[in-house]
Amino acid sequence: MGNQAKTAITPTRNEDYPEWYQQVIKASDLAERSPVRGCMVIKPWGYALWENIMRSMDAMFKTTGVQNAYFPLFIPLNFLEKEAEHVEGFAKECAVVSHHRLEKGPDGGLVPAGQLTEPLIVRPTSETIIGDSFAKWVSSYRDLPLLINQWANVVRWEMRTRLFLRTSEFLWQEGHTAHATQAEAIERTHMMLDVYAQMAEQYLAMPVIKGRKTPTERFPGAVDTLCIEAMMQDRKALQAGTSHFLGQNFARASQIKFQNAAEKEEFAWTTSWGSSTRLIGGVIMTHGDDDGIILPPRVASSQIVLLPIIRKDKDRDAVMAYTESLARELRAQHFHHQPVRVQIDTRDIGGARGWDWIKKGIPLRVEIGPRDMANNAVFVGRRDKGHRDKTAMARDEFVAGIASLLDEIQQNLFDRAKAFQQQHTTQIDDRQTFIDYFTPANTDKPEIHGGFALAHWCGKDACEAEVKNDLTVTIRCIPLDSPDEPGVCVYCGQPSAKRVVYAKAY
Amino acid sequence: MGNQAKTAITPTRNEDYPEWYQQVIKASDLAERSPVRGCMVIKPWGYALWENIMRSMDAMFKTTGVQNAYFPLFIPLNFLEKEAEHVEGFAKECAVVSHHRLEKGPDGGLVPAGQLTEPLIVRPTSETIIGDSFAKWVSSYRDLPLLINQWANVVRWEMRTRLFLRTSEFLWQEGHTAHATQAEAIERTHMMLDVYAQMAEQYLAMPVIKGRKTPTERFPGAVDTLCIEAMMQDRKALQAGTSHFLGQNFARASQIKFQNAAEKEEFAWTTSWGSSTRLIGGVIMTHGDDDGIILPPRVASSQIVLLPIIRKDKDRDAVMAYTESLARELRAQHFHHQPVRVQIDTRDIGGARGWDWIKKGIPLRVEIGPRDMANNAVFVGRRDKGHRDKTAMARDEFVAGIASLLDEIQQNLFDRAKAFQQQHTTQIDDRQTFIDYFTPANTDKPEIHGGFALAHWCGKDACEAEVKNDLTVTIRCIPLDSPDEPGVCVYCGQPSAKRVVYAKAY
Repeated sequence: MGNQAKTAITPTRNEDYPEWYQQVIKASDLAERSPVRGCMVIKPWGYALWENIMRSMDAMFKTTGVQNAYFPLFIPLNFLEKEAEHVEGFAKECAVVSHHRLEKGPDGGLVPAGQLTEPLIVRPTSETIIGDSFAKWVSSYRDLPLLINQWANVVRWEMRTRLFLRTSEFLWQEGHTAHATQAEAIERTHMMLDVYAQMAEQYLAMPVIKGRKTPTERFPGAVDTLCIEAMMQDRKALQAGTSHFLGQNFARASQIKFQNAAEKEEFAWTTSWGSSTRLIGGVIMTHGDDDGIILPPRVASSQIVLLPIIRKDKDRDAVMAYTESLARELRAQHFHHQPVRVQIDTRDIGGARGWDWIKKGIPLRVEIGPRDMANNAVFVGRRDKGHRDKTAMARDEFVAGIASLLDEIQQNLFDRAKAFQQQHTTQIDDRQTFIDYFTPANTDKPEIHGGFALAHWCGKDACEAEVKNDLTVTIRCIPLDSPDEPGVCVYCGQPSAKRVVYAKAY
Repeated sequence: MGNQAKTAITPTRNEDYPEWYQQVIKASDLAERSPVRGCMVIKPWGYALWENIMRSMDAMFKTTGVQNAYFPLFIPLNFLEKEAEHVEGFAKECAVVSHHRLEKGPDGGLVPAGQLTEPLIVRPTSETIIGDSFAKWVSSYRDLPLLINQWANVVRWEMRTRLFLRTSEFLWQEGHTAHATQAEAIERTHMMLDVYAQMAEQYLAMPVIKGRKTPTERFPGAVDTLCIEAMMQDRKALQAGTSHFLGQNFARASQIKFQNAAEKEEFAWTTSWGSSTRLIGGVIMTHGDDDGIILPPRVASSQIVLLPIIRKDKDRDAVMAYTESLARELRAQHFHHQPVRVQIDTRDIGGARGWDWIKKGIPLRVEIGPRDMANNAVFVGRRDKGHRDKTAMARDEFVAGIASLLDEIQQNLFDRAKAFQQQHTTQIDDRQTFIDYFTPANTDKPEIHGGFALAHWCGKDACEAEVKNDLTVTIRCIPLDSPDEPGVCVYCGQPSAKRVVYAKAY
């Protein structure tokens, strides 16, 4: 593949976006399908990315006073049933545990035995089981607020799955808080949305729109659902995090009560908020190109790979010594409060080695050969530039400037994604234009068209449903910063007070 | 409770050790039982301890070349059946998922629906599902070794549970490696046992004996199981980590094959090793006293609590400013490569505040009142000393010496536990002495007696079973450093080549 004119990933994004997505994950070794229906295996390169995302987000949570805890994987069926909308929202995708052992069956094989008197549900989310603890932990207003987060696996049975975007089991964090007042709970809902937006923009270099879901798109049982929505390169939206104001619904269901300062009993006000390994799908589709994925430096599994070039055996020791001392110097540098993450690849596989790292999306590739050594130099390839675009740099300058170089790449990725999002976001005020915008012009490539339409909506569920049915387009959110602006609904012509974001979505 | 003569925990260890264990967990707010049979809720103070254990252990794993990944929660029944001993070992404690949705039943309530064609088992351990991935990832000796770890929850259905020690769901790490040669796999098995021993001794201040399990106590499917065994304060043994050499058993079951350098196909040699939230039970029972738990500084959820003492309102601002600046100075110090973990408790609840932190086991309590301020001093209580034993220290000296003070506490806890273990470890060569050693002298307090008996064993399963049946004593391990020493079996009188460790156990 050394000097190929072709791209490393077949097909390209333009040729077949969904297939590109599968191939790019395979080529980068992030994850793979497992033999268990709908469940994925997250491979080391993908898991290291998730570890970096977790570490960054966890630190942000803790700064806001949140503490981690851990609650049971299983939820008794009657707990789930306590909140009517909630159970209805999840009933169709629940994994049910019915037995607690295996026994030899009549034909000699093992069969389930020890049937449970009440089935247990593998948690699809934990409001009801955590609510049960909160009810025990709270008795006075002095016990509030409770600010709890859990890093966990959850299961929502899916028939059609896509790695990272939609899998039956996924990894996530779910935050759950309880407050003495409505105002404080609403403030927390917004605060955590801001954390998600920061995480997306500052760490994943993924620009997002902060908004509110329409009533039909709310979390089952919530009073209000806030979300961040990002634009992928096929111009579809990806919901990348949600923060729910639950009012007193779950407090009532779980009996989370407290005595207020006036010694009167009240239900607490609760929130919940979650983000998941889906963010990795967002990173892939925001930054990836036809040569593979591109990892934002702040969360990259590794940031720099050193590629010693040894053409003659007599050079080996000197090149390796130079490489290892360079690795040590780089690891002693810090980027965004963490030691720089460096690895050395000594595999003797020719040009495939450099291509491997391009496909894996590592921010910097550094080639080191005898000539570079002689010049006290390094030969640097940036993943955010073309694969042929490599630059010789003085070694000392490279080491001393590594943090600002990584910052520059991080910023460049964000700027590119932001420009792309702006380019494909349009105000639309006319029904036919709206329909055309969301209708593929080229039926050979139905994937890439449209974008975000900022258009008026009448506020009616029925109209929203019609758009969804006719065009497979949904209201992604009502942007929080959307100004009041009288107009008429782009689809039905009824009066509207605000524009919303319409898009096709994952 | 200010000047109580009594202890903070009732009953004391001597009065009723098992009940003391439950009460000390409650008083320290580490965890509690959940409404889901056998599952626990790990509360923030307990989870922070687990986070510190994870961080320390994870760093040690990575130093040995191990990478993290994540595999499915569910295992198809036929996977588990691939290794006969393995499935037999776990069949009695498997949670079985049988359905994938809920549906309105005849009486209006929800009932399981969408029955699975093949039941899924919630992982009790992941050898078989990870083996399936390994089989895909390995084709040549160049792909080896594979060194993988996963942090995960597992489920082993238990009828009688005890917080942290035996719960149906628990959190753990499980390492899985595959190698080209038997020697390399055996070396890895020992290497990871050494990591566990280091973790236990250097971080948890819990002295352990490294040894080998007898054949009947091996992990189901393993060729050899190594373990670390610690002594609790009731002199029972706690198995605190195991490392298994699996030979080619699981490679054969999962078809993990590779072409060797001579291009011949071979089965890989695999290992697996695990440790869990059980370690927290070990910390409680190794160090806890009649006033609560005592956390070793290196893993303590928090290391220092500052307790501002404000008797008059006019002092409030000055005392708080002094406290907050002290917190900042302490947090700028490092202990064992981490910023010192400090919190401030401003609750106005009198003497109960100090006792709260004693029960929670925080290594250092620092009282700060107007007089301390005037002297530029702090008033320090060490949790490894009695609750009345507090010392005034110059503030600057305290801050500058914080790392060595924490080190001293860490070392003191280890030394105490080591002395206790040695005090209750005895060579026994006579059958009646052996029986007496393991028979409670005082039937009112049957819990505390015996200890570790270093005694000869004939090597026969039947004799081992007899001891277990007669005395509820098991062979904890054959110590790795046990010298060859001809003798006769303490129980049956047959010839023996080595002493083993006998004890009652958790």
